[in-house]
Amino acid sequence: MNAEWLNVPSTPLNKQTAEQAMARQMQLTKPPGALGSLETLAIRLAGMQGTVTPVVDNVHITVFAADHGVAARGVSAFPQAVTVEMLRNFSRGGAAINVLARSLGATLNVINLGTASDPGSLDHVTDRHLGPGTADFVEQPAMSEQQFYDALNAGRQAAERVSLARADLFIGGEMGIGNTTSAAAIACALLDKEAAVLSGPGTGLDNKGVSRKAEIIASALARHQSAAGDPLEILRCLGGFEIVALTGSYLSCAHTGLPVLVDGFISSVAALAAVAISPDAADWLLYSHASAEPGHAHVMEALHAQPVLDLGMRLGEGSGAAVAVPLLRLACELHNGMATFAEAGVSEKTK
Amino acid sequence: MNAEWLNVPSTPLNKQTAEQAMARQMQLTKPPGALGSLETLAIRLAGMQGTVTPVVDNVHITVFAADHGVAARGVSAFPQAVTVEMLRNFSRGGAAINVLARSLGATLNVINLGTASDPGSLDHVTDRHLGPGTADFVEQPAMSEQQFYDALNAGRQAAERVSLARADLFIGGEMGIGNTTSAAAIACALLDKEAAVLSGPGTGLDNKGVSRKAEIIASALARHQSAAGDPLEILRCLGGFEIVALTGSYLSCAHTGLPVLVDGFISSVAALAAVAISPDAADWLLYSHASAEPGHAHVMEALHAQPVLDLGMRLGEGSGAAVAVPLLRLACELHNGMATFAEAGVSEKTK
Repeated sequence: MNAEWLNVPSTPLNKQTAEQAMARQMQLTKPPGALGSLETLAIRLAGMQGTVTPVVDNVHITVFAADHGVAARGVSAFPQAVTVEMLRNFSRGGAAINVLARSLGATLNVINLGTASDPGSLDHVTDRHLGPGTADFVEQPAMSEQQFYDALNAGRQAAERVSLARADLFIGGEMGIGNTTSAAAIACALLDKEAAVLSGPGTGLDNKGVSRKAEIIASALARHQSAAGDPLEILRCLGGFEIVALTGSYLSCAHTGLPVLVDGFISSVAALAAVAISPDAADWLLYSHASAEPGHAHVMEALHAQPVLDLGMRLGEGSGAAVAVPLLRLACELHNGMATFAEAGVSEKTK
Repeated sequence: MNAEWLNVPSTPLNKQTAEQAMARQMQLTKPPGALGSLETLAIRLAGMQGTVTPVVDNVHITVFAADHGVAARGVSAFPQAVTVEMLRNFSRGGAAINVLARSLGATLNVINLGTASDPGSLDHVTDRHLGPGTADFVEQPAMSEQQFYDALNAGRQAAERVSLARADLFIGGEMGIGNTTSAAAIACALLDKEAAVLSGPGTGLDNKGVSRKAEIIASALARHQSAAGDPLEILRCLGGFEIVALTGSYLSCAHTGLPVLVDGFISSVAALAAVAISPDAADWLLYSHASAEPGHAHVMEALHAQPVLDLGMRLGEGSGAAVAVPLLRLACELHNGMATFAEAGVSEKTK
């Protein structure tokens, strides 16, 4: 198991270009602060990209898919077959993330890390099979050491390919029936919270279903108590392959200095794990939207994060992050394209 | 004064296409409701445009500019000269709304309804001079009957031109030093609220400045008490030319059946007046963003409106509405472009 790369430090932000960008915002023909979080986003991107004129032209989206052993316990409103069915839908271009990627002109990669049944060869889907889904983590660790480091590494390699393609922004997405259960369990273990606090309806459980899901998560947390305080072991025992790969991809982006736009609940839990493993990875993570999944607000609070959008979305696939891309682009275009007070001959604030 | 057109009924929404769009959303390959307000937006646009596949391709932005007599009382953090200076900035393409219109491929029209000094002839700015700004409404009605109906009509004509250009969406914007004071006064009169509740910093007043602004608004409300209950007279006594034109443009859009995306505080007050004049105009108004101007939340509450974005913006010019356009476009593209469960062979929800 080569896990040395996990100890690579994150690329430092460029404080100078961030400060220059902040100074520029104060000179643009608008009351200072009047563009709200669009100003903050442009300044953060300037610090990440090391330029006073950041851009978000070249966007890459990687969706990681996998099945979950715990799905057999009935933790989802949809049958497990949907993971493979959605891989076929991604392959044919019919899912939300396909529509969004086309509209944004973004590159979309889909990686299958292991589904319960074999979907066969699918166009536009890369097969990185680590097993027929994870094991049921109520009974045993979700994955072996080998599977765990392979999943982390699959995420790392996906992000490195994106970095080599000179992307301006990386978005990770996920698909896997049962994965809000895995994400909630990981977040509970990382944040030392009760299962009931972070359990939610996922794709659409009723109240009874959510209660049952919380009981299952509580059992899993009791089983894997020895992982407490060790984010890698928490991910291995309670993770899904796709969540671990997301964590690996975020860590790799921080290493290579590639800005990340994090999607909703599951992706944010992967980000929480990445920051637990390597706190300075936080510098490279932007948060796109507040998920309707109730546990998301707790994860955002723990990350001191304020997502850009709050549209009541809860789809995954990277869709919420994709929807926020136009706002990052407009933030950069306003920042780069507006006239300054001096250029336009406009009077500044008098009081 | 020809004001007959104000009594034209709004075009009714197409309930059938809205219902068909709602049914389609339930069949797309995602958990029902998982796209949050993007689903609601697509369904509302389907009802407005009378088609199950709405689009937001052809967007027209009209910015109305004018000066305010009350600005002489020091109600703004910027000098009154900025209104004319910003008209020059619009003319040369350096303002936020220019950058946004270019990025969105939207048509931008700027109409000068009357500034304190004459900017001369400006490229890309239409001159519809109604006077050197409004009168100081602490002393007298802001405008004469003639000016008032001319301002309403200027808005109506601008919206009719956009409607004839087969636009999919109309955005109104405004520029005018002092116009949050006018907007707050109108909202207080329409909603019967105290001046202090709806007075805010505008372009950046400090607390002392906000208190003084509230006192000035309270004086104006006392002076024009006889207008209470009459939205047209409230607009005439307390309005700005640009705010009245916005109200006229929104009413015209409702008459011709053109969807409107309303910007922030000042535009929302113009929308509040439009709905007070003609309640069914509300069917045609979508709200883009929650302004950082504190009075905006009260206006949204009165309109039972939930804006799409909350970015802490407070710039005006139609900028917040422009920033929300990509989300409306993505809402339509997801609605029109995603595969259904049947098309994709994906299993539906089981519980």
